[in-house]
Amino acid sequence: MQNALRFGVVGGGSWGTAIVKMLSENMDRIAWYIRNDSIIRHLQREGNNPHYISSAQFDVSMLHLSSSIDEIVEASDVLILAIPSAFLEKEFANLTLSLRDKIVFSAIKGIVPETGLIVGEHLHEAYHIPFENIGVLTGPCHAEEVALERLSYLTLACSDTSKAELVAKKLRSHYIRTKISDDIIGTEYAAMLKNIYAIAAGIAHGLGYGDNFQSVLMSNSIREMKRFIGCVHKMKRNINNSAYLGDLLVTGYSIFSRNRMFGNMIGKGYTVKSAMMEMNMIAEGYYAAKSAHDLMAKLKKKAKTPIIDAVYNILYKEKEAKKIFKQLTEKLD
Amino acid sequence: MQNALRFGVVGGGSWGTAIVKMLSENMDRIAWYIRNDSIIRHLQREGNNPHYISSAQFDVSMLHLSSSIDEIVEASDVLILAIPSAFLEKEFANLTLSLRDKIVFSAIKGIVPETGLIVGEHLHEAYHIPFENIGVLTGPCHAEEVALERLSYLTLACSDTSKAELVAKKLRSHYIRTKISDDIIGTEYAAMLKNIYAIAAGIAHGLGYGDNFQSVLMSNSIREMKRFIGCVHKMKRNINNSAYLGDLLVTGYSIFSRNRMFGNMIGKGYTVKSAMMEMNMIAEGYYAAKSAHDLMAKLKKKAKTPIIDAVYNILYKEKEAKKIFKQLTEKLD
Repeated sequence: MQNALRFGVVGGGSWGTAIVKMLSENMDRIAWYIRNDSIIRHLQREGNNPHYISSAQFDVSMLHLSSSIDEIVEASDVLILAIPSAFLEKEFANLTLSLRDKIVFSAIKGIVPETGLIVGEHLHEAYHIPFENIGVLTGPCHAEEVALERLSYLTLACSDTSKAELVAKKLRSHYIRTKISDDIIGTEYAAMLKNIYAIAAGIAHGLGYGDNFQSVLMSNSIREMKRFIGCVHKMKRNINNSAYLGDLLVTGYSIFSRNRMFGNMIGKGYTVKSAMMEMNMIAEGYYAAKSAHDLMAKLKKKAKTPIIDAVYNILYKEKEAKKIFKQLTEKLD
Repeated sequence: MQNALRFGVVGGGSWGTAIVKMLSENMDRIAWYIRNDSIIRHLQREGNNPHYISSAQFDVSMLHLSSSIDEIVEASDVLILAIPSAFLEKEFANLTLSLRDKIVFSAIKGIVPETGLIVGEHLHEAYHIPFENIGVLTGPCHAEEVALERLSYLTLACSDTSKAELVAKKLRSHYIRTKISDDIIGTEYAAMLKNIYAIAAGIAHGLGYGDNFQSVLMSNSIREMKRFIGCVHKMKRNINNSAYLGDLLVTGYSIFSRNRMFGNMIGKGYTVKSAMMEMNMIAEGYYAAKSAHDLMAKLKKKAKTPIIDAVYNILYKEKEAKKIFKQLTEKLD
């Protein structure tokens, strides 16, 4: 029965493309929603995504491609979402079918701006999907390395771990290992917070701080992440597992990370607006910094979050990065 | 009284030179043992160390330089040792004075081969220095960044934390922050183990593993380090503090780390002997891998240490790196 479950991927970016590639190692039919018809036509013609990890080559006959969200939802029992959280509601605006009976795994990082919820909670609230059918797919994983078939480890989290295993089984291959977790909330927050810390790492680099400081910043970041998640969802977890620390490191040390690049420009003196225009893409940590800050402000029992505060004050309060980071260095150890 | 304490540094390598530079921000007299007279002459003439971080410029009038270990010990109340642990006994062979009344801080990583002890224990056993006068100075800190006056954080550990503070006070400056710890054994083992994990990171890179795997390897390394140190010296410590995790990261992610370079050559297929000849210097993690392995073999309650085991088997048992790492990837998560 489980073998008959049909999988669909929502999103034509680098991460969505990487997920389709991983699934294609184990399945002979994958539904794939891409909003842009010209990308679909290119895929059908050339067998690759022209904009993202284009070296990944697909057997087109196994792909069910569509720019209709209804069509892909209809064709799927298990959906994996891989679009920026800021665009989730925009993409789902055309959805007329119910998601209630689907298993939905989020490979999305961040908070849905319309509801201020992390994706798992949002799926539950907005689409009435029971929590036991909602999961998280997280790294540490650059999509680019999936294209190169370099060994990577994914964590699948779901309160019903048999569902996590069901999805894991379809992703595992000679270059993908998987780990199962029941900490859906913690892994989702970790995936979101790491983008803020990557911005901080970029700002520090842009301001001229070196490798010694970077390592202190990462050491403080993981402790701050532990405190933050502990406030939001207290449970026994090892924050040094790959889904938390590994995910932080792969982003915080990557010179290709959009969030780190964005931070680097801020550190070098760009305004937020000019950095965004220059990059011509979204640094998810920008939104995450506000979400995390606002969430912590609402909580009764607050965690000390000097790094998030520093990034927030620079991005949203127009505070000078140099000054804020000078103050931050006094709070780290 | 404390202000009158005289400081001496033992070792003319990059780390010793960096420590003298840090002290020179606060003191007007520093004794400095360097075994090589030609380096001393160069320093006296040019004000810099020709071989290590030569951009650091000294006011020679404040340096008391000597290649006589007795002379420098005589001239110091507080000694900071900065020579590879493998050479400690060789350098001290000419010492005729007692160290019993000195405060001795070790900036050395590793185990003294003659006794199989970490430096702190060795100083206590071999030189009868009471434990409350023995300390550890640890990073995360590349010496090269000290020369550039890039902000760095040091941890000073001593069972008598007032002694740690006494040393910290002389090291702090506009580019150095300090943290005090009473975990002398844990910080010393961390400083030693990180070199083994840096070799592992190098081997992985040499074998063609990418950034995704590197982050998983570091995430597993810090958990392994925690288990290892917990077996050797159980106490409450936060393994994510800068002295442990930060120190691991600054080494494991540094492309300039000798240990990582050494591992990289092993991963690319060099034999241990040819890699050592090619590098023309010591990768401390090479000795640390044997020490750590042998120590764990002796303990009754053992920690699971798959990464140390893998490095040990490659370096000392002539096992093929590719095969051993393939097996290792199955043990990580």
